[in-house]
Amino acid sequence: MIKSFYLIFIAILCPLHAIDPLPSWNEGIAKQKLLEFVKMTTEEGSGFIPPEERIATFDQDGTLWVEQPFYAQGTFALERIHALASQHPEWKHQAPFQAILERDQEAIKNFTEQDIGKILAVSHSGMSIKEYHQLVHDWLKEALHPRFKRPYTELAYQPMLEVLKFLREKGFKTYIVTGGGQEFVRTYGDQVYGIPTEHIIGTAGKVRYEIVNDQPVLTKIPDVFFIDDKQGKPEGINLFIGKRPVAAFGNSIGDQQMLEWSKGLALLVHHDDAEREYAYDEDSKIGRFSAELMRQARAKGWIVVSMKQDWNTLFAP
Amino acid sequence: MIKSFYLIFIAILCPLHAIDPLPSWNEGIAKQKLLEFVKMTTEEGSGFIPPEERIATFDQDGTLWVEQPFYAQGTFALERIHALASQHPEWKHQAPFQAILERDQEAIKNFTEQDIGKILAVSHSGMSIKEYHQLVHDWLKEALHPRFKRPYTELAYQPMLEVLKFLREKGFKTYIVTGGGQEFVRTYGDQVYGIPTEHIIGTAGKVRYEIVNDQPVLTKIPDVFFIDDKQGKPEGINLFIGKRPVAAFGNSIGDQQMLEWSKGLALLVHHDDAEREYAYDEDSKIGRFSAELMRQARAKGWIVVSMKQDWNTLFAP
Repeated sequence: MIKSFYLIFIAILCPLHAIDPLPSWNEGIAKQKLLEFVKMTTEEGSGFIPPEERIATFDQDGTLWVEQPFYAQGTFALERIHALASQHPEWKHQAPFQAILERDQEAIKNFTEQDIGKILAVSHSGMSIKEYHQLVHDWLKEALHPRFKRPYTELAYQPMLEVLKFLREKGFKTYIVTGGGQEFVRTYGDQVYGIPTEHIIGTAGKVRYEIVNDQPVLTKIPDVFFIDDKQGKPEGINLFIGKRPVAAFGNSIGDQQMLEWSKGLALLVHHDDAEREYAYDEDSKIGRFSAELMRQARAKGWIVVSMKQDWNTLFAP
Repeated sequence: MIKSFYLIFIAILCPLHAIDPLPSWNEGIAKQKLLEFVKMTTEEGSGFIPPEERIATFDQDGTLWVEQPFYAQGTFALERIHALASQHPEWKHQAPFQAILERDQEAIKNFTEQDIGKILAVSHSGMSIKEYHQLVHDWLKEALHPRFKRPYTELAYQPMLEVLKFLREKGFKTYIVTGGGQEFVRTYGDQVYGIPTEHIIGTAGKVRYEIVNDQPVLTKIPDVFFIDDKQGKPEGINLFIGKRPVAAFGNSIGDQQMLEWSKGLALLVHHDDAEREYAYDEDSKIGRFSAELMRQARAKGWIVVSMKQDWNTLFAP
């Protein structure tokens, strides 16, 4: 009887206590500004934004999941080169493949965009979209992050998963806008972030529609169609969505233009937590961060998130 | 009292009588197959399709609205050339502009793809996306269809508007996949079809992100980025949506690949109604239709809609 009373008591009182939608965020300016933005845009008043315009765009690598010491997709591509090497004896003496096969870390670190283009071309093409997804899916099941010894798909930032969920509950459409491969992210976007394929915008290779054995097939061909980085981000957002975002989230110089393009909130994740993750500050040699980006963020009133100060949890346990 | 009884009586009985979701469709095989498809895919059973996979794609010109005697966008482009002519005295002696300025209908009819590319390049670029939308918006308010003497935006096919609405009510996402200009259709897609910008896929020009007077702007530049026609349609569907449609609707050889790419229903609108609209049969010289397309439709079990037989109403009054 006392127990029943207690349960009824809880049931009545609970709705009066607001449940914190962002429990992995420490109290502070960043969290406060996020909550204020959502309240302002979704409740009646001068800042109200109608649901059809509630577009929120998120960079992926370094914003939604770990990008250090190397992008997951980069690791996938390098491993594909090893797997395909026996079919390409010429690679032994051919840049950039030689460096990969000889595991020359210094050379790999200094690959040019052209080198990377060549690697992606051969490792991400010559198969159907469906086969490619299977390949990535299988790889992600086995691959472990070198430091955290966990699958990459478990290394999404818990605080950002909370933001995604919270925004969707408040009627926002959440999009990934990544410099990484669109089809790569599509293989796990729904499972990891709750983001369906049609809300994943990314760098895209060309595909060719053809009829094979009387069945229609889309085959990945070794040409880049669209690079979704820097100015490519607002351009891609326009191409895919046709509306300016009202909230944008990034962490690198590749996201600056997307953050500028937001009509409302812009948030920059600052990796300053070498202990729990990585620190790539203005002066560090890793990551695509710069003092200039930080200066822009301050000047334009973007929310700067200190991973160290603002996040009490990094990953789901 | 009797009136109250009557109202209660109606209120109880009404849900038992199914309201026809497609009143502008005559009873017949096409309507029956459409209704069966929606019932099968949305009610429990072996044909059930989960909501997240309910993707329906629609060609626009000739499928959702009138495309004869000339595409609305084509007319817009030709009128832009006249409007811009004073700034381009060289056009008087330069193909393809000379033919437009001299209103040489025969030459205009025989424009090559290259000619059309040149016309679109100059008439659809050199301004921001926002300015372009305003231009199209203003033009659509004034322009009248030469035969029907009504704005183009009133010449959407009522039967297809009913299909769009019905599918959305049943949890389908409806997309336009047009060979026409993506940004052109985006100016009125929501108003005319209830389709938001992010569900409009079309032929796209390149845009350039830049900062003008301290404000970010997307400027249309005179290069084609993507042609959303023929094999471009399934390729575009993959790029934008990342899922195969389960229902596709078209009317021309430009739609064949999209209809093949549908995993479920494929529907071909056949313009055979010269009296109420236009007839462009296998042998006619107008439209992009062919005997081969009709043969494919029959062989593959696509629904062939006879405008004359299947639609009792063409346009909203």
